[in-house]
Amino acid sequence: MADDAGIRPGEIKVELPQGFDAGLYFIGRIRTPWPTRDDCPKNGRESDAVCTIEVDPRYAAALAGVASSTHLLVLYWMDEARRDLVVQAPRHYGEPRGTFALRSPVRPNPIAASVVKLVQVEDLRLSVVGLDCRDGTPLIDLKPYFASTDAVPDAVVGWHAKR
Amino acid sequence: MADDAGIRPGEIKVELPQGFDAGLYFIGRIRTPWPTRDDCPKNGRESDAVCTIEVDPRYAAALAGVASSTHLLVLYWMDEARRDLVVQAPRHYGEPRGTFALRSPVRPNPIAASVVKLVQVEDLRLSVVGLDCRDGTPLIDLKPYFASTDAVPDAVVGWHAKR
Repeated sequence: MADDAGIRPGEIKVELPQGFDAGLYFIGRIRTPWPTRDDCPKNGRESDAVCTIEVDPRYAAALAGVASSTHLLVLYWMDEARRDLVVQAPRHYGEPRGTFALRSPVRPNPIAASVVKLVQVEDLRLSVVGLDCRDGTPLIDLKPYFASTDAVPDAVVGWHAKR
Repeated sequence: MADDAGIRPGEIKVELPQGFDAGLYFIGRIRTPWPTRDDCPKNGRESDAVCTIEVDPRYAAALAGVASSTHLLVLYWMDEARRDLVVQAPRHYGEPRGTFALRSPVRPNPIAASVVKLVQVEDLRLSVVGLDCRDGTPLIDLKPYFASTDAVPDAVVGWHAKR
């Protein structure tokens, strides 16, 4: 995946470390209507599709109490994304920008974080609205969304606001 | 760390998978005023301490454009947390609850997600307000916080609201 061929003008790649510092368990899979990356919406607010989070049976007991939340923070693993670009020029924005100024899946640790509306919990399956990923995307974590700490309605991403 | 001795009444642990499914790079460190877990605030809104995120020089270029954001979503690795509890009884809540209904650092993938206010960016150091972790905590990711997708002011965590 780390081929120079896929790099756009202005993008910069780095040599990644030799080894990893920590390991992740995939704890489930996300089922969406989008079979490939190219089919996906640009972000979770661009679609009102109901997606299904399928949690591994090993973690069934960890779902106790989840249904009382209206919204969740979902972490998932963008397993098709390259990890070595530090400056990127996403197709829908003109100018190249630093990876940490973007929500692109391409990053040293390709973890996506999305706030979803919880529609239903049925055994190991959670129906949610607000995801943007390819069908089959590995699930990493589910967290309750606390407005008191997670909601900052007046936050501004300066470069984006000026476009 | 996965000793039964540390388990409180009502807590449930599971056998974790034999191997990991993906690997993480630590991309920096977080400097905070709290040397141990016991010193940490319960969440990032309980302290207005300015903490410092130190990004690894390898990723310097990835910071281009970050300073234009008022708020960031910071992902970090709770490296001292056990990973095998699916039901937990945190000390400050009475009743045991499923791990995915809690923001506890104890979870299969101990990734914390905090929204911080960005105070200053100076080379590889970001001054921020809103963190709750031990000094030296490994950094995993920095993302711009978009109010349009990340802020849900009317979200409710039912079990917490009823306390």
